[in-house]
Amino acid sequence: MLVKIHDEFIDKLDFVKRDGLIPVVVQDIKTKDILMLAYANRIAIENTVKTGNAWFWSVSRNKLWMKGEESGNIQEVKDILVDCDHDSLIYLVDSNNPACHTGNRTCFHNRLYPD
Amino acid sequence: MLVKIHDEFIDKLDFVKRDGLIPVVVQDIKTKDILMLAYANRIAIENTVKTGNAWFWSVSRNKLWMKGEESGNIQEVKDILVDCDHDSLIYLVDSNNPACHTGNRTCFHNRLYPD
Repeated sequence: MLVKIHDEFIDKLDFVKRDGLIPVVVQDIKTKDILMLAYANRIAIENTVKTGNAWFWSVSRNKLWMKGEESGNIQEVKDILVDCDHDSLIYLVDSNNPACHTGNRTCFHNRLYPD
Repeated sequence: MLVKIHDEFIDKLDFVKRDGLIPVVVQDIKTKDILMLAYANRIAIENTVKTGNAWFWSVSRNKLWMKGEESGNIQEVKDILVDCDHDSLIYLVDSNNPACHTGNRTCFHNRLYPD
């Protein structure tokens, strides 16, 4: 679906507000479960658009990374949504792979108020 | 549902990583639509827990704010999910109110790749 780069749209994103990074929510396009939250810079978003796989900027490791580059749990991005302020994104992904390094389907597997 | 404060759980949250703030994804508990992304500090999360309404820290206005305090579009928080790194949250809300200042149901009403 992501067949060409819409540079003018990426140009509108607000990279200034948070030192070049934009938070990205990864959501399962089928179940609508939220799988993870990570950060992307412009190059990560461009790589996502070019390759169709989810790319991010790792703040802890200070490097670009493709989700699944080590684990194999690649996330195929079917669409990208942007919010009204152009400062956060949703990657809509089609994947049954675990998103969490713990092996869980989602990183959000804990409730603040466990029963 | 949020009847008592689990201080020990809030204590585990990583407020150091991003200068006291944690990104919060607001998700409709029924439709699972993502409505908005904002930031919360410890007091905002405590207020959310105490009142059952969604509170945040406004980075642009540099103040605490309850969602809907001006618009009336309050978001009732039914549950809070935390991710594996304890550095991002999901507020699961039960509300049919528009979340976006534009009047849209969700702030994420634009696609990076409009058809």
